[in-house]
Amino acid sequence: MIIFLYFITGTQWASGQNKLDGSELWFTHMETIESASFACPSFIWIPQSSPTFTIIHKELKSGLNKLYNREVKDVSRLNSNGLCVGTSSQKDLSSYFKKEELSVLGNDGYIIRTTGNNVTIIIANTDLGALYGTYHYLRYLQTDNTHKANFDIVEVPSYQRRILNHWDNLDGTVERGYAGHSIWQWKDLPQKISPGYIEYARANASIGINGTVLNNVNANPAVLSIEYLKKVKTLADIFRPYGIKVYLSINFSSPSVLGGLTTADPLNKDVRIWWQDKAKQIYSLIPDFGGFVVKANSEGLPGPQDFGRTHADGANMLADVLESYGGIIMWRAFVYNPNGNDRAKQAYNEFKPLDGKFRKNVILQVKNGPVDFQPREPFSPLFGAMQHTTLMPELQITQEYLGFSDHLVYLGTLFKEFLNSDTYTNGRNSTVSRITDGSVYDDSITAVAGVANIGLDSNWCGHHFAQANWYAFGRLAWNHQLSARKIAKEWLMQTFSHDQDFLNQMSGVMMESREATVNYMTPLGLHHLMGWGHHYGPEPWCEISGARPDWLPTYYHKADSIGVGFNRSSSGSNAVSQYAEPLLSVYNDPALCPEELLLWFHHLPWNYELINGRDLWSELCYRYSMGVEQVKYFQCTWNSLQSKVDKNRFNDVQNKLAIQLKEAIWWRDACLLYFQTFSHRPIPSQLDQPKSKLEDLKELKFLKTHHN
Amino acid sequence: MIIFLYFITGTQWASGQNKLDGSELWFTHMETIESASFACPSFIWIPQSSPTFTIIHKELKSGLNKLYNREVKDVSRLNSNGLCVGTSSQKDLSSYFKKEELSVLGNDGYIIRTTGNNVTIIIANTDLGALYGTYHYLRYLQTDNTHKANFDIVEVPSYQRRILNHWDNLDGTVERGYAGHSIWQWKDLPQKISPGYIEYARANASIGINGTVLNNVNANPAVLSIEYLKKVKTLADIFRPYGIKVYLSINFSSPSVLGGLTTADPLNKDVRIWWQDKAKQIYSLIPDFGGFVVKANSEGLPGPQDFGRTHADGANMLADVLESYGGIIMWRAFVYNPNGNDRAKQAYNEFKPLDGKFRKNVILQVKNGPVDFQPREPFSPLFGAMQHTTLMPELQITQEYLGFSDHLVYLGTLFKEFLNSDTYTNGRNSTVSRITDGSVYDDSITAVAGVANIGLDSNWCGHHFAQANWYAFGRLAWNHQLSARKIAKEWLMQTFSHDQDFLNQMSGVMMESREATVNYMTPLGLHHLMGWGHHYGPEPWCEISGARPDWLPTYYHKADSIGVGFNRSSSGSNAVSQYAEPLLSVYNDPALCPEELLLWFHHLPWNYELINGRDLWSELCYRYSMGVEQVKYFQCTWNSLQSKVDKNRFNDVQNKLAIQLKEAIWWRDACLLYFQTFSHRPIPSQLDQPKSKLEDLKELKFLKTHHN
Repeated sequence: MIIFLYFITGTQWASGQNKLDGSELWFTHMETIESASFACPSFIWIPQSSPTFTIIHKELKSGLNKLYNREVKDVSRLNSNGLCVGTSSQKDLSSYFKKEELSVLGNDGYIIRTTGNNVTIIIANTDLGALYGTYHYLRYLQTDNTHKANFDIVEVPSYQRRILNHWDNLDGTVERGYAGHSIWQWKDLPQKISPGYIEYARANASIGINGTVLNNVNANPAVLSIEYLKKVKTLADIFRPYGIKVYLSINFSSPSVLGGLTTADPLNKDVRIWWQDKAKQIYSLIPDFGGFVVKANSEGLPGPQDFGRTHADGANMLADVLESYGGIIMWRAFVYNPNGNDRAKQAYNEFKPLDGKFRKNVILQVKNGPVDFQPREPFSPLFGAMQHTTLMPELQITQEYLGFSDHLVYLGTLFKEFLNSDTYTNGRNSTVSRITDGSVYDDSITAVAGVANIGLDSNWCGHHFAQANWYAFGRLAWNHQLSARKIAKEWLMQTFSHDQDFLNQMSGVMMESREATVNYMTPLGLHHLMGWGHHYGPEPWCEISGARPDWLPTYYHKADSIGVGFNRSSSGSNAVSQYAEPLLSVYNDPALCPEELLLWFHHLPWNYELINGRDLWSELCYRYSMGVEQVKYFQCTWNSLQSKVDKNRFNDVQNKLAIQLKEAIWWRDACLLYFQTFSHRPIPSQLDQPKSKLEDLKELKFLKTHHN
Repeated sequence: MIIFLYFITGTQWASGQNKLDGSELWFTHMETIESASFACPSFIWIPQSSPTFTIIHKELKSGLNKLYNREVKDVSRLNSNGLCVGTSSQKDLSSYFKKEELSVLGNDGYIIRTTGNNVTIIIANTDLGALYGTYHYLRYLQTDNTHKANFDIVEVPSYQRRILNHWDNLDGTVERGYAGHSIWQWKDLPQKISPGYIEYARANASIGINGTVLNNVNANPAVLSIEYLKKVKTLADIFRPYGIKVYLSINFSSPSVLGGLTTADPLNKDVRIWWQDKAKQIYSLIPDFGGFVVKANSEGLPGPQDFGRTHADGANMLADVLESYGGIIMWRAFVYNPNGNDRAKQAYNEFKPLDGKFRKNVILQVKNGPVDFQPREPFSPLFGAMQHTTLMPELQITQEYLGFSDHLVYLGTLFKEFLNSDTYTNGRNSTVSRITDGSVYDDSITAVAGVANIGLDSNWCGHHFAQANWYAFGRLAWNHQLSARKIAKEWLMQTFSHDQDFLNQMSGVMMESREATVNYMTPLGLHHLMGWGHHYGPEPWCEISGARPDWLPTYYHKADSIGVGFNRSSSGSNAVSQYAEPLLSVYNDPALCPEELLLWFHHLPWNYELINGRDLWSELCYRYSMGVEQVKYFQCTWNSLQSKVDKNRFNDVQNKLAIQLKEAIWWRDACLLYFQTFSHRPIPSQLDQPKSKLEDLKELKFLKTHHN
């Protein structure tokens, strides 16, 4: 079966015929850059064999063929002008390296080095390390412009576990998915295998992703039934040679719902036995099963608190069950209560007292911000605060709050802003990345998760440029030191073109795109102004009687006749107290607080004066307008590059940009007209005035349906 | 003589004929606002008499006449619908007030209150307090729109001494003056009295300024000759009824240069005797003489260090000499040494060790920033650091580094940014204003100085809008809690028009104007890029062989192939260490440092990524371009208001804005083209590209002569 699949995918991307419909992701544009100083190797030697080495061999043969239009010969020894790939157990290769440099590579790291006689060796401690090195080598040939004569690359990933979270339901829908139905054809599995599965595994492996949580965190207990576990096993078998481990989201009440027990109390013996049996069943099918993600006592889902137990009780019971198999529990910290005075404080308040109470194979999965994947949030104060608990970031690749797959919003900058945030919890340079990668605290597990934006759309992600967010997540999970701009250029080169002008212009657009979205949606620290439920479009006025107040925009913007913003300073909810100094003082003081977070932490009067001499109201008007102007510039830039892009993708992106501009204006007009009912101030005359009336905008209903 | 002068000025501004050439300053446009709820009083009673009360009487009679076109009757008792002005010694008036509320008024404070029978009383403890109350009353009628039915105003000034520093030379030139020659006609004094002297005193008194340093801090010793002292006495006599005290800048070597002694050593007995004799002579002519300003051991001027003595030795000797007369010494802290590694650190390094060593009647006069009146600087770290020494801020009203009198740059925002800066030296809310006004430390003297922008030009300041900076300085010296926007509107209403659209538009322009200048001159914390000597126009490339390095732009911007900016962090000059926490940490960390000070504290690579997704180079390009766009918007706004402004002043300002736009472009092009020789990056294509070549811009010589 596996050979059959290789054949399918192999022919597709080695054919030399690009489809140019986005289906080939970052394998679309395979060519070396003009100034490349690397010649094509004349020979390949791959001394070892395994399913993974079979992939390595195929990738190199077809990749070099595509890059240099040459059929590279296979040989069986180290030849001059040759390329060799193998593991450190291969003495012929490892003798070229020092023991110490090989040992630091761990499981996934690799070295690519050109030795004497112009032989380039890709070496790792595992087959998978060799695979990652191979993808690096091929990417390097396409994107490097440092003009070095020889390879000398050593890479070790930032995180051990680099995981995609699919919020895919068993019925084929995807929660917060904007690229069509789920790629998992549950009905057809395990009998029928979609060729997309291996393309998926290959795409992930090529950027270093090594885990996938197949189902939604709002988990259907049925996923643990034997029927579904057999489907899962099939996927795990397909993914294994690519190094993609399978994980599942579980429903905490599975023992009662699925197992017929009267309780799911984690301290109940029968419950534990049920889980032990279930684990045994899973691991008998999938010996390298990764573990569980658990969303418990969150947004109405069951959890240990239903039985008077703590999150630690629940997580530890499951951790004990998986421990002997090497499985882990990713326990989500996304909890909040409609009765609390500030949702942004609640995860910290609930989990901080449990610090040190979790098993070693539990890792708390914490969203980047304290609320929920907003266009901009400060980092969650849990990062750095839990010094005796292992934490992993949960990032959102899918654009739930960022215009779905209609808006071009490159998230590399958002991810980097978060990873680079200094928590100061262990002195300066206690950045989120160093807190979570094991540099600051000695964590036995390190991990990072990204909520996938993948669906059955022919271009995978709904928007050609949304692929870049999947790509950027993978690249940063591998190496969080990479710059967002470098990643953007890398992706553009592999996906679209090597044209310098194109690269400069479009990497500029990508780099600016997230800030543009912040500007036209929620500038200056505003957040959660979007439409009810679907989270698309502006509804700052949204009031639904009986609704949870913490699901309504007014809870967050708190606009009134005096001003706007959420007072989280020491005179308000005091959420600032959850941050370490000097951040506490910085966030607590409007004069020091970064302007981009001003209204996140402060309720300020409409006439509050900013450092640039504008009052708050005028600055809001400027920022919203600037966001619109930025989209116009994206549109104009894209149009100017028409000759450098294939017609299909040019038109697709052009259409999306037209939607984005229309909706940026919608956001600007709706928010400004709404806030104006409180500020009673004019929109500065040099800015475009709204073309709609507030009442009309309020009448607009979002009837968008998902792609299919 | 005084009566003669009153006559001259009285007729001028009571004539009802406005000149509309700017000569009448903020007395140009006297009318009540449309919505004013105050009726004109029917009677005036001024029970006391003195030169100051004569002024009060005249101001009220002519002011009310102009405001309501009514001749208000004088009466000699408290009449219904009457207005009374007097001091607390007047029992008929003081009986309406509590003792405690009168005692807190001090020397200069006042109450304006409407009591029963619709009688409004302006009361103070001194004649001058009553004068300030009178000006407040008249201003209030013109500018208040709170629609209150009755007056109930209590005002006590923020600073005791509110002083203009004239950098006027005895030869009639003005250092850094851009509004023509000095208003002091030294040759003609004391015989001939210019009517401008009293207009000057009146303008200052109307906004609360109560002191003037007549001559340049780079002082000619001759000012202390008996010949000049007699001239000074004449001015002091004219100013006295308006409450303007006279001060002089002295040259530290006066005892030798003027007195013929062999030394000016402050510890030398003969030197002390010389100063004692000189003081006696001064005070016999001017019994209320204010004191001395001293620029010593600064930029080549003599000082106590020439004799191995400290600044404290020098200041204390002079302080002892003036002490019995009630005089003070304003000792400037503007010292720096070409051999130091960072000019920004030097005043602190030199003066901090002397903390606590100064006499009570010495006050250190410290410029707002640690370098020199740049478009933007952080506050000088001396503020708050000298807990046992009295400090006063020196602000610059004249636009030495801000386009002279050619650029519309409202400095209210700059002054406020500085005054509101939190030093954190005594916990939070240790703002510069509270550090210097006696709120944090119990200072026996409080003072603030502004370097005047006044000259013989018919509109006093060269640019009609430069008058607003004089006005704003005075208003903030009186009440540093006023907002820059309120002051701008007040000034516009009194100077130009009450038209709401005009006020909103032009206060918007004023509020934004300083940031625009920062953008087109020195964005992101850059500083000192201006032309050599004259300080006009861009010369970031300026190299003059043999010149002091700390007078050259390269010392400050440190542009190189890697990046740009002055590393004052702990890895550089460590100037950040002079600030208290949390500022130290904030300034020390590029991620926390406010963007507007980024390159003040850090040398950052051209590809350094800002939070908005742009790299440093692109952001520089954007900021420079935004500055130009802002000036275009000022120009466009002004043009749209043509119908609301008299023709003369409309044309004057229009012409100045044309110069400003041309020069904003000059700044942008020169700086970007110059920095581009280091960054080797293109100016983003969506921005205007420079129209000039760098070589041509370098050839431009600044041949501007002063107005005359």
